[in-house]
Amino acid sequence: MIIILKEHPDQQKLNGLVTWLKDKGFDIHSSVGANHTILGLVGDTSQIDIDLISANEIVEEVKRVQEPYKNANRKFHPEDTVIKVGNTEIGGGNLTLIAGPCSVESEEQIVEIAEAVKKSGATILRGGAFKPRTSPYAFQGMALEGIRLLLKAKEKTGLPICTEIMDANQLPIFEDIDILQVGARNMQNFSLLKALGKTNKPVLIKRGMACTYQDLLMSAEYVLAGGNPNVILCERGIRTFETYTRNTLDLASIPSLKTLSHLPVIIDPSHATGRSALVPSMSMAAAAAGADGLMIEVHNDPPHAKCDGPQSITPEMFDNLAPKLFTIHNLA
Amino acid sequence: MIIILKEHPDQQKLNGLVTWLKDKGFDIHSSVGANHTILGLVGDTSQIDIDLISANEIVEEVKRVQEPYKNANRKFHPEDTVIKVGNTEIGGGNLTLIAGPCSVESEEQIVEIAEAVKKSGATILRGGAFKPRTSPYAFQGMALEGIRLLLKAKEKTGLPICTEIMDANQLPIFEDIDILQVGARNMQNFSLLKALGKTNKPVLIKRGMACTYQDLLMSAEYVLAGGNPNVILCERGIRTFETYTRNTLDLASIPSLKTLSHLPVIIDPSHATGRSALVPSMSMAAAAAGADGLMIEVHNDPPHAKCDGPQSITPEMFDNLAPKLFTIHNLA
Amino acid sequence: MIIILKEHPDQQKLNGLVTWLKDKGFDIHSSVGANHTILGLVGDTSQIDIDLISANEIVEEVKRVQEPYKNANRKFHPEDTVIKVGNTEIGGGNLTLIAGPCSVESEEQIVEIAEAVKKSGATILRGGAFKPRTSPYAFQGMALEGIRLLLKAKEKTGLPICTEIMDANQLPIFEDIDILQVGARNMQNFSLLKALGKTNKPVLIKRGMACTYQDLLMSAEYVLAGGNPNVILCERGIRTFETYTRNTLDLASIPSLKTLSHLPVIIDPSHATGRSALVPSMSMAAAAAGADGLMIEVHNDPPHAKCDGPQSITPEMFDNLAPKLFTIHNLA
Amino acid sequence: MIIILKEHPDQQKLNGLVTWLKDKGFDIHSSVGANHTILGLVGDTSQIDIDLISANEIVEEVKRVQEPYKNANRKFHPEDTVIKVGNTEIGGGNLTLIAGPCSVESEEQIVEIAEAVKKSGATILRGGAFKPRTSPYAFQGMALEGIRLLLKAKEKTGLPICTEIMDANQLPIFEDIDILQVGARNMQNFSLLKALGKTNKPVLIKRGMACTYQDLLMSAEYVLAGGNPNVILCERGIRTFETYTRNTLDLASIPSLKTLSHLPVIIDPSHATGRSALVPSMSMAAAAAGADGLMIEVHNDPPHAKCDGPQSITPEMFDNLAPKLFTIHNLA
Repeated sequence: MIIILKEHPDQQKLNGLVTWLKDKGFDIHSSVGANHTILGLVGDTSQIDIDLISANEIVEEVKRVQEPYKNANRKFHPEDTVIKVGNTEIGGGNLTLIAGPCSVESEEQIVEIAEAVKKSGATILRGGAFKPRTSPYAFQGMALEGIRLLLKAKEKTGLPICTEIMDANQLPIFEDIDILQVGARNMQNFSLLKALGKTNKPVLIKRGMACTYQDLLMSAEYVLAGGNPNVILCERGIRTFETYTRNTLDLASIPSLKTLSHLPVIIDPSHATGRSALVPSMSMAAAAAGADGLMIEVHNDPPHAKCDGPQSITPEMFDNLAPKLFTIHNLA
Repeated sequence: MIIILKEHPDQQKLNGLVTWLKDKGFDIHSSVGANHTILGLVGDTSQIDIDLISANEIVEEVKRVQEPYKNANRKFHPEDTVIKVGNTEIGGGNLTLIAGPCSVESEEQIVEIAEAVKKSGATILRGGAFKPRTSPYAFQGMALEGIRLLLKAKEKTGLPICTEIMDANQLPIFEDIDILQVGARNMQNFSLLKALGKTNKPVLIKRGMACTYQDLLMSAEYVLAGGNPNVILCERGIRTFETYTRNTLDLASIPSLKTLSHLPVIIDPSHATGRSALVPSMSMAAAAAGADGLMIEVHNDPPHAKCDGPQSITPEMFDNLAPKLFTIHNLA
Repeated sequence: MIIILKEHPDQQKLNGLVTWLKDKGFDIHSSVGANHTILGLVGDTSQIDIDLISANEIVEEVKRVQEPYKNANRKFHPEDTVIKVGNTEIGGGNLTLIAGPCSVESEEQIVEIAEAVKKSGATILRGGAFKPRTSPYAFQGMALEGIRLLLKAKEKTGLPICTEIMDANQLPIFEDIDILQVGARNMQNFSLLKALGKTNKPVLIKRGMACTYQDLLMSAEYVLAGGNPNVILCERGIRTFETYTRNTLDLASIPSLKTLSHLPVIIDPSHATGRSALVPSMSMAAAAAGADGLMIEVHNDPPHAKCDGPQSITPEMFDNLAPKLFTIHNLA
Repeated sequence: MIIILKEHPDQQKLNGLVTWLKDKGFDIHSSVGANHTILGLVGDTSQIDIDLISANEIVEEVKRVQEPYKNANRKFHPEDTVIKVGNTEIGGGNLTLIAGPCSVESEEQIVEIAEAVKKSGATILRGGAFKPRTSPYAFQGMALEGIRLLLKAKEKTGLPICTEIMDANQLPIFEDIDILQVGARNMQNFSLLKALGKTNKPVLIKRGMACTYQDLLMSAEYVLAGGNPNVILCERGIRTFETYTRNTLDLASIPSLKTLSHLPVIIDPSHATGRSALVPSMSMAAAAAGADGLMIEVHNDPPHAKCDGPQSITPEMFDNLAPKLFTIHNLA
């Protein structure tokens, strides 16, 4: 950590600051320049709150050298994390396809889609039971009954289930669910993250619409620091000024997150673009960029889907797409 | 609602769409242009999910005419909402000052600050007991003990309390709290919003970092639709590419939100800028732009504050600022 | 075009507006709803200035149905535009590799790099002679001498040249240059775009950092409307809150722009990411997403490059990458 | 400048880097930490290109301590720059009102508006002759004839003229113009900035839609480094995801830019919001935040304005607003 002091700092306050830092166990290197004095902190600064230093009136700016996350940091865990779900492994060189409808609507629907995507190569079924909707008047999901139907589909197809949890108090209901998904709007719901850190279930965290790679890794750190090592990162588009697509899919997140962290990185091209016509090309791009997996919305009747119809592809489109994804993955 | 069809739509599918819309109670006006056919829906479209229409394969685009919120909409509630808290009223021409530290640290601290800001003209005390922090290693607040100390400060000064609730299961603890604050990161925590809609306490909702005015009003709509009419909107900066300030304070939100809605609008210049030196000028700007109130972080010892020290002003600065704010408010 | 009127519009003003619109040759369809009256304009609205209507005091909002560009619009030109440069064609199913250093530094440098990238499969040489730099103190390029050296490299290798033009008055100097590049910072330099519209040279327009797909197509429209049909679109990242990468590469621009327009779309992963380590994966992703070409910075000695060293890959890396790109292109 | 090295840097490469830096005249302080070695550069780094260092393969990251601009930096010029235009001074505690139509349309129009705004307290007339429009089909301004009419209005009212220059080759035409405006879309048109640096006329630079405070100050630095000290900064909104307003007005730019620089800061609430109804409140907010002036679009017949009608206020609205602005300015 680098502390840049204001010009002509009060000597007594400087001594106070240096003493305080030494008490915290840091070694201090000081460089006196023409216009600035700089203090370099030597020691483990990953858990120090930068504001505690920058509020000091003799400090102009504080710059981090070390990342503020440790459990999620590849520097301290060079090997890829591989997460076992059912018979599938996420990470470590695999391309995992997670597919299914935005929301569960009926037993026939979820089972039919599950069977179709399984045949095409998907190894995990997705489907929403509790749906976070921006409008209180929109369909909010089938709730408990949705969970029941997802487990039915699991029973019939053997596919593990990934579905969204919205609140820590829902944990008992999710006991038989395989992957607990944290939505983009809950990425910084720290109560929920803390609760998930105390479970041992795989947690898939979606990047918030205004969150940096570091913010996402800090949310992962909440779960990891709680004792749960099974975290999957998911990019699903960030919010920008471009309105043609629902969000802006940031595929550079794949190599970037995989450099910064050892956790697997999944791409959701459906929510990222909001347009089914863009899903195949963005899925192929993600595979080419080295994604560990894709989460794709597949619906057997998009025009009548109860939510997110415009971004859902059909089982036929998915069946056409999946083999291309595996071929590109093997090439890249 | 305007439905723009693709060129040469299949006539049978068009008939199906029109029948479905008429069944929902809408009148349909159709305009046939050179390149596009347009359907105009007449009726109350505020509660219709736009995706249900745009997923139809003959539809190119759907544009809303009516806003998707109704309870929060000034068109249906032309009068300003005024919210009574203790002896203060928020909205309806008042300028309410909410002040206090980022987090409660001790009885001495919170009481001393409460007394100071009260003397300067603040009528509501703020202070965090449960703190949402991006790092799991940062100070997370005093929790229950923090709530106890806030109520102590209320007892001693008579100031009503505004503090952040992070989870619906905390509601019993907040029974004596006057204003329940929903943080920017929880603005779209719909489980929490639904629970707050069932209380009758004033709820202050902070705008999320990537949320539009409409998104904010939709979150307000969740609370209002639940039966709780006491919602206060709070702008606290959005995330942009500019990094000199922590966020970008969007003061045009004041006249915009007050045009779109009847709910009071409060500005938080402390979180918006992240720099105490910018707080006075941004507070005056907010008052000049017609804000119903300001929420300002005041700490008696910013360099040793347990959080957000860099953005906290001192009681002296606040005492110097407050009279200017009232003068500008009366002018504007 | 849809005109949404305010509630209870003044009838005389409404008559005036309708007459003015009819005089411009539009048919008007009017829908009277519960809260809104809507006018639908039938006719060619691509060239109408939306502000001329929305400034009217009885108008609440105007929404475009037809795109405001015509020459660049695929609806009116369904076939892909294919641009012939030397022996290469850009667009129409090809994958064109444009490679070379950020800036020309010496004859040895540019010729050596040109020969290397040609051998690896690049068919166009890039290199800056006039460099737009954010700092007046940074290297501004070799100017005229840089152009001379680029032409020397063309002579020796046969590769056509793509280089940036910064001002219309430089046109005579660029007489023998094959593709005139308009930088992101000049994307809305309309004086320059108008001048380029009067030439018949291929013009490669880079998307501005805060520009939408529509803005980019409007800049293309300036060149096309001037009579020059040879426009190439180039995505090079937009500016967002994420700072790990220099910009955020928006690969959904590829299928989106190709749907909206018939013009070829090129990706520049070097400026988009600012990090050479990300260039290979983003190049493969672009090829998988259907890009018509890639523009990649290649330098034989990145640590000593006079500009943009951190984002330049070496000839060896390029040689390793190029065959993968062609394989993926053929698959996708 | 702080150079953070990768773990275990090659000792020979490190020696090479240190020698190269010392040759450039810097003193080097080195701190060896647990995971990182850090080099601190002591000396004037304002003109060094950060990329020349960060491209080195042993370097992980380079962080600036000193700002990359010197002429625009308040640290080296503590006194406010005051710019004399006609009988008015911009900066140094004044509030200057610049008002007039988006574009000059006729002699009657510009003279009538000039007389009105002068009476209300404006001391500079604005009006566009050359208009940068996103559409090639929109009104492009009256060009040369527009300049002639502006000078006519100056003759009749004595008001100095501020109007936009789009290209360096227009300089001779602008000989009698008092303030040369550089539009947001040309903020990084470095050819134009260099040409303006060689004149001695006041130059008003509008912040680009995706440009940081530092970018804006770097563009100012181009003009200042060329020898022209008369630069005025203008905030006119940045581009964000919010679409209710045309842009997002960033009023924290006022105290921020005035801290970083000695140059005057002007606010343009008209382009920032795109809505005339928001102009009065945002003007008052800007005055309260300490702006040195305002640039406001005033049109005598907004519904028939040839451009930007929706954001233009009438002379009556301006006359009502101006005295409030002076009162707030004197208070703040």
